[in-house]
Amino acid sequence: MNMNLFKDYLRIPSISAQKEHVGDMRRAADFLKKLFVENDFGAEIVETGGHPVVFAEKRIDAEAPTLLFYGHYDVQPVDPIALWQSDPFEPDIRNGKIYARGASDNKGSHLSMLLGLFRSRPKFNLKCVIEGEEEIGSVHFESFLKANRERLACDLVVLSDTGCISEEQIVITTGLRGLLTFEVELTGPTRDLHSGVYGGAVDNPIRALTALCASLHTDDSRVDVEGFYDGIIPPSKAEVDVALSLDCSQLQHDAGRALLPFPQSAIRFSPTLEFNGICGGYTGEGSKTIIPQKASVKISCRLVPGQDAVQVFSKVQKALVEHCPKTMTLRVFNFQGGNPYFLNTADLPVQLQSLLRKTEGLLTAFGKKPLYLREGGSIGIVSAFRNVLGVSSLMVGLSLPQDNLHAPNESFSLKIFEKAADFYRAFVEED
Amino acid sequence: MNMNLFKDYLRIPSISAQKEHVGDMRRAADFLKKLFVENDFGAEIVETGGHPVVFAEKRIDAEAPTLLFYGHYDVQPVDPIALWQSDPFEPDIRNGKIYARGASDNKGSHLSMLLGLFRSRPKFNLKCVIEGEEEIGSVHFESFLKANRERLACDLVVLSDTGCISEEQIVITTGLRGLLTFEVELTGPTRDLHSGVYGGAVDNPIRALTALCASLHTDDSRVDVEGFYDGIIPPSKAEVDVALSLDCSQLQHDAGRALLPFPQSAIRFSPTLEFNGICGGYTGEGSKTIIPQKASVKISCRLVPGQDAVQVFSKVQKALVEHCPKTMTLRVFNFQGGNPYFLNTADLPVQLQSLLRKTEGLLTAFGKKPLYLREGGSIGIVSAFRNVLGVSSLMVGLSLPQDNLHAPNESFSLKIFEKAADFYRAFVEED
Repeated sequence: MNMNLFKDYLRIPSISAQKEHVGDMRRAADFLKKLFVENDFGAEIVETGGHPVVFAEKRIDAEAPTLLFYGHYDVQPVDPIALWQSDPFEPDIRNGKIYARGASDNKGSHLSMLLGLFRSRPKFNLKCVIEGEEEIGSVHFESFLKANRERLACDLVVLSDTGCISEEQIVITTGLRGLLTFEVELTGPTRDLHSGVYGGAVDNPIRALTALCASLHTDDSRVDVEGFYDGIIPPSKAEVDVALSLDCSQLQHDAGRALLPFPQSAIRFSPTLEFNGICGGYTGEGSKTIIPQKASVKISCRLVPGQDAVQVFSKVQKALVEHCPKTMTLRVFNFQGGNPYFLNTADLPVQLQSLLRKTEGLLTAFGKKPLYLREGGSIGIVSAFRNVLGVSSLMVGLSLPQDNLHAPNESFSLKIFEKAADFYRAFVEED
Repeated sequence: MNMNLFKDYLRIPSISAQKEHVGDMRRAADFLKKLFVENDFGAEIVETGGHPVVFAEKRIDAEAPTLLFYGHYDVQPVDPIALWQSDPFEPDIRNGKIYARGASDNKGSHLSMLLGLFRSRPKFNLKCVIEGEEEIGSVHFESFLKANRERLACDLVVLSDTGCISEEQIVITTGLRGLLTFEVELTGPTRDLHSGVYGGAVDNPIRALTALCASLHTDDSRVDVEGFYDGIIPPSKAEVDVALSLDCSQLQHDAGRALLPFPQSAIRFSPTLEFNGICGGYTGEGSKTIIPQKASVKISCRLVPGQDAVQVFSKVQKALVEHCPKTMTLRVFNFQGGNPYFLNTADLPVQLQSLLRKTEGLLTAFGKKPLYLREGGSIGIVSAFRNVLGVSSLMVGLSLPQDNLHAPNESFSLKIFEKAADFYRAFVEED
């Protein structure tokens, strides 16, 4: 295995969120371009409004279907640095795992994919897109797709940016939740007022906001907004059975006493309305006895197949308007919405339907049959590929639950790294 | 009138909250000591753990009652400085008012009092205490009182640190609300969690906190805590009539649409439970889709006569415990409590009861009979005088509603400044 190559790639601190790493971002893109060229791919660094995208391709046969492989070379920041057992940018191998920022998310995952492609005698036309802004919301990715629509034309997107169960069992992600975010602000008095001189005479925006927030859920944490659950396509019995069979120990560990019933199926099949941040009045040390002028909350909803972001937002907005007291001015703003995603095999070209059927067998080489699972998260680029290029995505999850994505001591299993390269080689060789 | 003296005093930027003004605090104390000595008072700067207290006295007759006059030489910060029409520390006279930080709160108010004493032939022993930490919560004042109990012994405290109705009508403050403050924190999951990967499986501390906050009030803003209103001594019909007759235009202006019914009597006669600040999760720009680990709120209650701070706190705490869901760990902390205050004339020495009766006539010289009013605020030092020295306080309010206390363009009426000096001269000469 190309461990030195992998280590050299991990040594580049390509943190997209931090300005001081802009040169490292460029180094990572150069590293990839060189790698593609050395392996007989045509490659180009494509500029965007932010960090560049590396595009590469290998044409086999104009009649063959085209597969587009996606990855991202940018990584998360490393704070809190004190909790790392080894330097986040000096890869360290312990117990069959490689520890470094980006080991799993996403350098190891897409490098194993690329190594598989490089070793293969492909039956498909291959295109690769490795972007540099996934960890900052893929801000320029949709406009990149729009600007390069023809050159990116393909029949299926393939990516490894999701999770698996264990080193023996890979997950094919069949669905993702949609995401909508917005903010709510209530303004009451004309300025912060003294709670002694005014208290009792003036309604308090924090009181009003907490009551408004509380009105959005029932006591058992269901969303209490008229029509919120309308139109949802329920999961199949098979999907539910798999979800119920999943191990909950990691969830239990992270959630502590906050764990709710049926966690695995709630994450995969139910929409949420979540408060991500709340703020109002004096929040420093000690006390300051004011009635604040305003208070605000950041809200996000995860949506499941059958829900539409714009429609759900308008239902929540309606509920907010109805429940807002007359003593407050309500502002709902910064709406952003992305719809849920579901992989429907029937949408694919016939030539690829057989490929998908073979994938299950190829992945079984890890040890067990892969699981088909919906995930709770939202991957903006999967929606972008569907919206702009009109194609579905095959998501082959390679990150272990213990891989500490976005956290200190991020890791990637070397066994998965090797087997994934084998899988991807076979994947593009089969027909 | 001593306008130059007044202006020189206002020019000292004695902001107790800001470290860079520690030298100015000392200059203000020196200024006062010199003033007392020049006017035949014994005077001393008494050190505390923070800014010093200026103590002065003039003994007349060991048999005569002793009056202790209180004021504070520290002032509020001046931000937002851009909104001042003239330099906050270069006094400017416009339309019969002097504009400067501290003009009303409290330099003008206590300087007019001191000038009255200096010109008088007093029938009482006079003591004066001018502190330097009122604007930062009189942090060392109670321990100063305890350490100087004998030297501060007196029959009545007299102060001007409250408000009046107009230049013609002074207010004698007969009651103050008590104040208790504390913080509530809910902790759910073991750390901030990704709202996609965990959403639906984990209860959200902001959801739980907003529901908990909402449980503390009824829909019409009454406090919904069992026993909260128990034992309250209702105001007399005369008190209510005065409150209902008061002008609400300033309140209306400041409260905007947040104004509640019967504002003047709510402030004076009703307790409150107020949220002063709330905080949890991500509160920066844009969105961050997390389920936060914790969320917290700062709460204060204003209490009226008949309520006890410790008892009310334990009732609120009980309600919080009862309503906290099992998915959260509740922490209630940083409790501080001060009881409400009520001036009961019957508590005073007989010699002073007649003085109090004469005060009404003396104050009528401003134009109209003074009003006896309870105020909504809490003055910690009034409770401290009662708790440590066992004495009541006579509060003669001199600040106009338009005087912009704690705000830009603070002012003091020169007419009130002059008439208050005359009043205080007569006040200590009568017997």
